[in-house]
Amino acid sequence: MSEVTQSLNNLINELGKLPGIGRKSAERLAYHLLHQSKGEALALADAIRDVKENVRYCTACYNLAEGDLCAICSDPQRDRSTICVVEQPRDLMSLEQTGIYRGCYHVLLGRIAPLEGVGPRDLTIDALVRRVGQGEVKEVIMATNPTTEGDGTALYISNALAELPVKITRLARGITSGSVLEYANREMLSDALSGRQTF
Amino acid sequence: MSEVTQSLNNLINELGKLPGIGRKSAERLAYHLLHQSKGEALALADAIRDVKENVRYCTACYNLAEGDLCAICSDPQRDRSTICVVEQPRDLMSLEQTGIYRGCYHVLLGRIAPLEGVGPRDLTIDALVRRVGQGEVKEVIMATNPTTEGDGTALYISNALAELPVKITRLARGITSGSVLEYANREMLSDALSGRQTF
Repeated sequence: MSEVTQSLNNLINELGKLPGIGRKSAERLAYHLLHQSKGEALALADAIRDVKENVRYCTACYNLAEGDLCAICSDPQRDRSTICVVEQPRDLMSLEQTGIYRGCYHVLLGRIAPLEGVGPRDLTIDALVRRVGQGEVKEVIMATNPTTEGDGTALYISNALAELPVKITRLARGITSGSVLEYANREMLSDALSGRQTF
Repeated sequence: MSEVTQSLNNLINELGKLPGIGRKSAERLAYHLLHQSKGEALALADAIRDVKENVRYCTACYNLAEGDLCAICSDPQRDRSTICVVEQPRDLMSLEQTGIYRGCYHVLLGRIAPLEGVGPRDLTIDALVRRVGQGEVKEVIMATNPTTEGDGTALYISNALAELPVKITRLARGITSGSVLEYANREMLSDALSGRQTF
């Protein structure tokens, strides 16, 4: 379109590549950035650059970090004898937001997905086995997603850790607080029944 | 939140300032940028920077431009005797997308809105009057938005141009193609009736 300048067109295209941002939204965002003060718009550009330049993976647990160790691994108050295994840093964030868990984590950076060509070697499972092998860890909590692939990954890991003197647990499954039984599916109800607790 | 790195948190905050992007969307976009290749993510950062550094207003018509003149004003094929007056560069884009209009434009960069403290002096009306005063322009088409403020702005401009030998027109109003009469409001129907054309 000759009527848009080249830089603006380029920005619209780049914004349009983001997930969930269509052409119209990209245009709206581009005009917003165009009309913002230079400082405000460049703050976003700089924030993108900073993330790409500073964020790496924690050398211990593969959570996102800005130094060698992430905020959790470098916190002396966290319990090092418990490791919660999650697929992605976002899962870790969700668990942290509950504020209940005080142990450490291990981020797999994915799950075993043969159909997508992702095998155990593509994840950080070896590092987890080494970590547990050092003897400080007493319990490993599987918190992979409750999907076929997540469950398969948890099963693979529990086998890989079977020889080590560590307790392996997984997150409880059942009906969710605030939900309605009428709309619960078969799988949820069967989990809830088989995991039922004394009242 | 201690579990997110500072750069990532900063990026989430900056993305969350964009219109229509809430906290959850900002997180999703930030993780997307984090997982993209460095080149792809920096392309967006650079595109923002380019827009802020290169895009300015056309010295003739106040459309967006990268040099002194915008793509339209520097196109020798455009008819310089007709000027279409719009509120914003986006309005110009919409008109251009129809591909019908071959004249030039004048972008007001707003509309007269006393309640928001926007008066005629805050717009580019003086520049339009000077442009028309040079004598080359034969027709000025008012294409401000069909709102109270847009209509008021068009009226103000037509008064400002009244002394000059130029024809002043405005976009036709009526029912929209593809619409349903049943849902047309009073104003649309009254415009359509008063502007009725011979069949």
